[in-house]
Amino acid sequence: MTSTAGTGPHVVVAPDSFKGSLAAVDVAAALAAGVLAAVPTARVTRLPMADGGEGTLAALAAAWDVPQHALATVDALGRPTTAFWAASPDGRVGVVELASASGLPAVSDVQRQPLHAHTRGTGDVAAAVLDAGVEEVIVCLGGSASTDGGAGVLTGLGVRVLDAAGEEVPDGGEGLARAASLDLTGLHPRARAVRWRLAVDVTNPLTGEHGAAAVFGPQKGAQPGDVVFLDEALARWAGVLERETRVAVRELPGAGAAGGVPAALVAVLGATVERGADLVAEAVGLPAALADAALVITGEGSFDSQSVRGKVPDGVARAAAASPARPPVVVVAGQVLLPAAQARAAGIRAAFSIAPGPTTLDDLLDRTAQRLTDVASSVTSLVLGP
Amino acid sequence: MTSTAGTGPHVVVAPDSFKGSLAAVDVAAALAAGVLAAVPTARVTRLPMADGGEGTLAALAAAWDVPQHALATVDALGRPTTAFWAASPDGRVGVVELASASGLPAVSDVQRQPLHAHTRGTGDVAAAVLDAGVEEVIVCLGGSASTDGGAGVLTGLGVRVLDAAGEEVPDGGEGLARAASLDLTGLHPRARAVRWRLAVDVTNPLTGEHGAAAVFGPQKGAQPGDVVFLDEALARWAGVLERETRVAVRELPGAGAAGGVPAALVAVLGATVERGADLVAEAVGLPAALADAALVITGEGSFDSQSVRGKVPDGVARAAAASPARPPVVVVAGQVLLPAAQARAAGIRAAFSIAPGPTTLDDLLDRTAQRLTDVASSVTSLVLGP
Repeated sequence: MTSTAGTGPHVVVAPDSFKGSLAAVDVAAALAAGVLAAVPTARVTRLPMADGGEGTLAALAAAWDVPQHALATVDALGRPTTAFWAASPDGRVGVVELASASGLPAVSDVQRQPLHAHTRGTGDVAAAVLDAGVEEVIVCLGGSASTDGGAGVLTGLGVRVLDAAGEEVPDGGEGLARAASLDLTGLHPRARAVRWRLAVDVTNPLTGEHGAAAVFGPQKGAQPGDVVFLDEALARWAGVLERETRVAVRELPGAGAAGGVPAALVAVLGATVERGADLVAEAVGLPAALADAALVITGEGSFDSQSVRGKVPDGVARAAAASPARPPVVVVAGQVLLPAAQARAAGIRAAFSIAPGPTTLDDLLDRTAQRLTDVASSVTSLVLGP
Repeated sequence: MTSTAGTGPHVVVAPDSFKGSLAAVDVAAALAAGVLAAVPTARVTRLPMADGGEGTLAALAAAWDVPQHALATVDALGRPTTAFWAASPDGRVGVVELASASGLPAVSDVQRQPLHAHTRGTGDVAAAVLDAGVEEVIVCLGGSASTDGGAGVLTGLGVRVLDAAGEEVPDGGEGLARAASLDLTGLHPRARAVRWRLAVDVTNPLTGEHGAAAVFGPQKGAQPGDVVFLDEALARWAGVLERETRVAVRELPGAGAAGGVPAALVAVLGATVERGADLVAEAVGLPAALADAALVITGEGSFDSQSVRGKVPDGVARAAAASPARPPVVVVAGQVLLPAAQARAAGIRAAFSIAPGPTTLDDLLDRTAQRLTDVASSVTSLVLGP
């Protein structure tokens, strides 16, 4: 969080990234410039936001003004890679982003391997975060290459997943099909001493027609036969987890995120599944920042019906509604597809596109920052006076 | 002026037309729908505006809710045509639009005749308006086909323009080159009993490098040689007018509008040259409507540097600044090219495009009304609360 020292009204800018164009921290800077152009005395707080998916680690590190720590680990196919994590300034909260070690883009240089891809690297990162002494771990899910039910994360944390003969099963969804029991004796000693919070932006269950394999498997390369295999493997894995922990995860909303990672972390580590945008909002201190805000400007590349269902504008709107100041929430977006009435129903007072008129996407991408500044300036002037 | 019966805040919508898309009355209706969508209790006053150019007669008739009267007369080439005029509900103010009888589009079916085109038809319409008993005549200039220094208007009102031999000169700029004196004995008996107000949106003088012939002649078909001829003819005409009336019009700002029409009407009829947007604003009752307004929404197709120099948004902004309520002025436009800071400097609090994102002109034209409503709804919600 960075604030200017103005003595005038307090304006909070809390945007998501504009995918393919500007990072959230750059969007926030452009919006803040617009606010100050309209009201030079304003106190402007910049809070780059994220919804728990890719980019969340960067947004939190920027909001906290802390460095990202590098760790040598393996990618979703077991190849050497470098992943990153961060901790809050007070060292209390650690952040792990699954996409950093185990993301799909990093393995898109070779043929996709939906049965073999895994999340062991994310487990390595989580272990490093525990070693750093945090009390709480936020795991940002999304962008995964695998459908391993979170077995890889457990493995990275020292758990052994065993088959009926007591042998370790291989990494990836394929191994789940033979999983019979867990050996928790090697689990990181702090793993059960911290609070695990999973930032999730879907509500899919682990298995079935809305499950991890059926809905997200194909985009990871799963053919129809693979989907059936993975769905059955996840069901078997859910049975193992339930027997070992007495925690039922098969029907848990959100357990199907990131190839089923929440199933393992909820069952074994007592993790909670949370709406990513809300979790990030809390982590960056949005509720506190809004306490005396006169205006909140948020934004994202495309403001549409998804935006008010757990995405950043939705999280900002809910935080604003819960604030005693109840500041108006305005969305500035690359494109605005949601009718104004539906935006208002979701607590968003107004939404404006940065398009200055008929224009191409390329042209708009060329001057996103300039247009963000100009529209934010108009919005600020309108709300806070000339 | 039409107002809804709401008991809530008073919102005035006072847009120009969106050229090539929607008439001002339709733009006003779409904006009003948006205001009411956001604040159903609002009292909304619709005041379609114009800047004194083409479309002003229609806007005034709509604002006054009066019919347009048809008159058989001649076009700029002397061919039969039907032109229109209107009077205010109390019959006190008449409106003549030069483009109705003497406009360029109506004669674009044949080769342009820059030396022969004239404004006699407009004089006929003016005479009809005088016959109707008005006390004031607003003449909307702009869109003319001719460069006749207003000689045609005078002719239509009964004046005879004579050459050195006492013979009437022909219509059009060509005749001015031989003009030597005026015979005012046939001038309409009420012509000097009423107040003439010329709605003009340029400041060009009658002659010279910034004059009617040099600047506007070419778009009426004048070749370089014609421009020189017409400029000299207008200079001669100014001399005749000055000798006959003792009124100097050669350097008068705005005298170069509509092929020099103001020169004749200022000299012979004591007309005043006024900024069109201001004149229309006054005529439709904008100042009175703004007295208790909480918000004014105006708009035009393209909001650019010209918009704040005498166009409708400028007129609305000046009227708002002069109002005791000092309501915020917001522009909703097809495209917004003026930076927000320049808009604010001109008294316009914010300007938003109706473009919802990257889009083509055709797509935007297809849904101008819907987008106007949506953006007006967002603006209203932002200013007047949820």
